[in-house]
Amino acid sequence: MLTASLIHRKRQGEPLRPREWRALIAEFVAGRVPDYQMSALLMAVVFQGMAPEELDALTDAMLASGETLSFGADVPPRVDKHSTGGVGDKVSLVLAPLVASCGLAVPMIAGRGLGHTGGTLDKLESIPGFRTALTREEAERQVARVGCVIMGQTPDIVPADRRLYALRDATATVACLPLIAASIMSKKLAEDLQGLVLDVKTGSGAFLPDRARAVALAKTMVALGAARGCPTTALLTAMDRPLGHACGNALEAEEALLALRGEGPPDLLEVTLALGIEMLLAGGVESDRGAARTSLQAALDSGQAAERFATMIDAQGGNPAVLDDPAVLPQAPAQRVWTSPTSGVVQQVAPRPIGMAIVEMGGGRRTMDDDIDPAVGLVITAKPGDSVERGQPLATVHARDELGLDVGMRALDEAIAVGHEMPGDVLRLVQGLG
Amino acid sequence: MLTASLIHRKRQGEPLRPREWRALIAEFVAGRVPDYQMSALLMAVVFQGMAPEELDALTDAMLASGETLSFGADVPPRVDKHSTGGVGDKVSLVLAPLVASCGLAVPMIAGRGLGHTGGTLDKLESIPGFRTALTREEAERQVARVGCVIMGQTPDIVPADRRLYALRDATATVACLPLIAASIMSKKLAEDLQGLVLDVKTGSGAFLPDRARAVALAKTMVALGAARGCPTTALLTAMDRPLGHACGNALEAEEALLALRGEGPPDLLEVTLALGIEMLLAGGVESDRGAARTSLQAALDSGQAAERFATMIDAQGGNPAVLDDPAVLPQAPAQRVWTSPTSGVVQQVAPRPIGMAIVEMGGGRRTMDDDIDPAVGLVITAKPGDSVERGQPLATVHARDELGLDVGMRALDEAIAVGHEMPGDVLRLVQGLG
Repeated sequence: MLTASLIHRKRQGEPLRPREWRALIAEFVAGRVPDYQMSALLMAVVFQGMAPEELDALTDAMLASGETLSFGADVPPRVDKHSTGGVGDKVSLVLAPLVASCGLAVPMIAGRGLGHTGGTLDKLESIPGFRTALTREEAERQVARVGCVIMGQTPDIVPADRRLYALRDATATVACLPLIAASIMSKKLAEDLQGLVLDVKTGSGAFLPDRARAVALAKTMVALGAARGCPTTALLTAMDRPLGHACGNALEAEEALLALRGEGPPDLLEVTLALGIEMLLAGGVESDRGAARTSLQAALDSGQAAERFATMIDAQGGNPAVLDDPAVLPQAPAQRVWTSPTSGVVQQVAPRPIGMAIVEMGGGRRTMDDDIDPAVGLVITAKPGDSVERGQPLATVHARDELGLDVGMRALDEAIAVGHEMPGDVLRLVQGLG
Repeated sequence: MLTASLIHRKRQGEPLRPREWRALIAEFVAGRVPDYQMSALLMAVVFQGMAPEELDALTDAMLASGETLSFGADVPPRVDKHSTGGVGDKVSLVLAPLVASCGLAVPMIAGRGLGHTGGTLDKLESIPGFRTALTREEAERQVARVGCVIMGQTPDIVPADRRLYALRDATATVACLPLIAASIMSKKLAEDLQGLVLDVKTGSGAFLPDRARAVALAKTMVALGAARGCPTTALLTAMDRPLGHACGNALEAEEALLALRGEGPPDLLEVTLALGIEMLLAGGVESDRGAARTSLQAALDSGQAAERFATMIDAQGGNPAVLDDPAVLPQAPAQRVWTSPTSGVVQQVAPRPIGMAIVEMGGGRRTMDDDIDPAVGLVITAKPGDSVERGQPLATVHARDELGLDVGMRALDEAIAVGHEMPGDVLRLVQGLG
């Protein structure tokens, strides 16, 4: 294989053959295609895209680069959810134990926050003792015993993705629809699933703010999953505002605990249930949406979902006492309340400045190696369309120090707009792809 | 400097600032910008191009990455020629001593063959003993003493170009107009020149066959040179047929010797004189084209040009006896004559199959590390428009063995077409940019 000639063909817009993609990925993982050739090829893909057959082959080759989870006949059907990421999105923490408590298994490989969006693993690790670095065997045993796991990618699962992602991050080739699709789907297909639901965020705080691009990504991933024996559905959900109230790792973990007791913010509940319904249908434990919603609500109301989370936390080394006592979570030493500067209607709560402020306050990463401060963040109760009074508290900054308080307050000044009209361009919380 | 964010901006089509290009090249040469980031950036440049200010900065940064030649006040004005490369193009071997014999200095840093085009250094090295790997100091002394040198790039001259070129060769980013311009001009600007003439090839055998692209490259390089105190002119010359008769390293060296005695093929003489005229004007030894042509012709007729070549060969360790006895050059053991299959008019002599056949016969390189067989090649006396008889010898293959003879004969079958009309689309041998 002459790698330079493959790069040349892709540069010229010619699709590479499936076997060429397979050879490229295998040789890359084996260290025989150097990073500098792969990064040039990826940049050519950014400009020339990939034909469906190329994307199929890339995804398969990435999946084949490592081990996959595998479950015995005694384990219930596996279903999972993947979100393209947003601000305040703690759905996975609620959904995995909730769906498991309804009789399905959820072997969730999740990610870390980067940029302005948070990461599920970081939120879970704010629970003292919680381990996300499980081996494949530990994960398989835990799913068989507990019904769910939320863990990081292991070194053996889709190693091609880890190497490709690090390279893409360093070479500005992350934002590329087919590369995103192959990265997500190769990991999800490694989970031995019977069904997958995608939460594709749209709106200003989403990774792909443009709706058409978000829909294209969703459709690409649905097709990839379907063709590989993993029925995949997708919902578009609003990321023109944070999801729920809490933004920041420990604050979000606390809000997830509330939601598991049925006391979470309504928007968080609605998105969680919409995704959960699709998972129960995919896993075959319910056959219509109404019944699925009833089951999920019952699991929340009965405390079974919360109990399942406690079992999962315990299984992964975390302190399950967090369920009854959120004070177990790290607390930021400084708080400051942000109040409405005027009476009127909330026009917007822009997620991106919120997410960026959390990074600046120490609660997110600038690079993959950064440590994060789990305690800091913002709790914002205001939603677009709310009527508010001048001086009404709409948000609280939780910071490490005075500097962090200032950063948070400035971000709220930028993010929250109060005016006198009803905001016209608020996204529907949950939509189909149509 | 966050390299990934610079790559991102270039990917998005935003020009980088001059100081950002300077930092990128300096850090790349220092090993602090890794190859995988540079190759991704170069691929983004392939798709997004470079603004003139960016190209200026890149060229300057490449030039500043190493040492430059420098000449004392006693050395005549320096002028040089650069060709974008073709098949049978042995002009440099004739032109450097010819122009030096007219009173100018020619400090020529030349290249090797790659792909279907030959390289000046390879042609010179077919002369037994000839050394092209000179140090900067050796080159400066030789130019002061002999008036000309033809040498390879030293490790100290424009090291950024050597590293970038190796990376571009491995990542299919060689064919990119601004990168070509910066690579050529940074090396030429390192020669301490008072004038530069560019021979931009056009036609099917050129690196850029498309005339508009060739003109764009020429204009870009002319502007780069002019803005840097090196008046630069460009001629477009025909590469829809080989230049001269001989194609292959030793065969071309031999033809260059003939040309220096005024016995070369007319097209080779015409291109050589056209370029030489521009050099004499640029160097200020002549002020009109007619007088310049007369001077050059006189230097050929008097033997001064040939004598200067002998002195240069001697200075660089080669055997100057080659001037009187071409048998000093390596000879291929097998020859075969190709004859016209029909009576008629030569429609075309396509350079690309000729160049590719020489590579396959061992006379060119597939990779920079390949050794080459200097003796093999093809001598083709036919030119488009020639009237020929059936059975008339039009070419001779010079090969190492029977296999090579077959390769050469097949290439001639493909390259030479004889028909019954006058060919309509033959390029003018020399044109201005207009």
